[in-house]
Amino acid sequence: MKKSFGAKTLIFPTPVWCVGSYDTKGAPNVMTIAWGGICCSKPPCVTISLRKATYTYGNIMERQAYTLSVPSEHHVEEADYFGMVSGRNTDKFRETGLTPMKSECVDAPYVVEFPMILECKVIHHYEIGLHTHFVGEILDVKIEDSMLTDEGMPDIEKIRPIVFSPEARKYHAIGKFIGKAFEVGKKNIIYQKQNLLLRHRKESQNGYDFGRLSWECDAR
Amino acid sequence: MKKSFGAKTLIFPTPVWCVGSYDTKGAPNVMTIAWGGICCSKPPCVTISLRKATYTYGNIMERQAYTLSVPSEHHVEEADYFGMVSGRNTDKFRETGLTPMKSECVDAPYVVEFPMILECKVIHHYEIGLHTHFVGEILDVKIEDSMLTDEGMPDIEKIRPIVFSPEARKYHAIGKFIGKAFEVGKKNIIYQKQNLLLRHRKESQNGYDFGRLSWECDAR
Repeated sequence: MKKSFGAKTLIFPTPVWCVGSYDTKGAPNVMTIAWGGICCSKPPCVTISLRKATYTYGNIMERQAYTLSVPSEHHVEEADYFGMVSGRNTDKFRETGLTPMKSECVDAPYVVEFPMILECKVIHHYEIGLHTHFVGEILDVKIEDSMLTDEGMPDIEKIRPIVFSPEARKYHAIGKFIGKAFEVGKKNIIYQKQNLLLRHRKESQNGYDFGRLSWECDAR
Repeated sequence: MKKSFGAKTLIFPTPVWCVGSYDTKGAPNVMTIAWGGICCSKPPCVTISLRKATYTYGNIMERQAYTLSVPSEHHVEEADYFGMVSGRNTDKFRETGLTPMKSECVDAPYVVEFPMILECKVIHHYEIGLHTHFVGEILDVKIEDSMLTDEGMPDIEKIRPIVFSPEARKYHAIGKFIGKAFEVGKKNIIYQKQNLLLRHRKESQNGYDFGRLSWECDAR
């Protein structure tokens, strides 16, 4: 039995990303969000949603740019803090001892100590309701050398990003590897082909056509 | 040192959600996505991005509704499969043996065996590039009774959603609990107050004003 929770922003998993921006005086700010996600492959884009009341909102409207710094679980205290206080009256970099660095590609700072950085140029913003939804084109992704696999691929087990649970208000680490994407599901395609053969064998006894076999197996 | 990966849809973590829809004949379909996220708190909304070529795209444009079924790690094979084959020529429910159920609130089916369900009505769609970005208002969230804490709260450690790593193309489970949100960061606020007192003590010896103390500590 499923219990109904009503109309809520309740889904798992959601990310923990720190949005970097400059204010009108050029002071770096950083704010933690969980409302965001990839929204397009070409051009590569990522969205973030902000309330107008946040200091970051005004900064991004002004400079049309932001970074996303992905904190590792080792920085969970700083990431949580970045979401609790406002850049309007706090220098969050100074208070945490973390280091702002100007992005190479856009007019926004990132957090040097965090392992994964995205540099984003705003290409759209939409008013949804309480939140404004920014679509940022990803101009570069930077990852700490030591967080790559031997083959030079980004390694989530080294980067160790944080997962946020809305409603429960908890942070969790990344767990064990459970499968390769576009691989573990192939078992079902094998079953599907076996089922199809069985069905077609039965149907052909009843006078059906074998022709369907090819397009039903086309895995696009 | 950080290595540059260029303009890519590369960020951690991203979700694994299965989008449920009906086709024009009323047949249920389900497709796995990682491009999505919460985008507004009031009204509660979640986005998904789809290529026009997908069967789900046409279904959602027609019925203006979708569900998100959150698979647990136990269903990683089925979730992966749902992203590999098209509903245009495959009955994915039949092939996996999973059960479609019509949503209570919207004209779309969900996966009964998955622990967490969102029922969404499309309120906007935007063309970004290769992907169309759908904004769905969340009308209800349903969670399996046995996946709640003793207090009746959704428990990510029981639901066990899957995390996807773009580029690396891997699935990971949820790991250990690492902190309460809006709690673990408070340590920094205490440091901030101590730093402020120290700075103000020093500044007051030099003739500065104590007045700043109150608004600098205001943690909005």
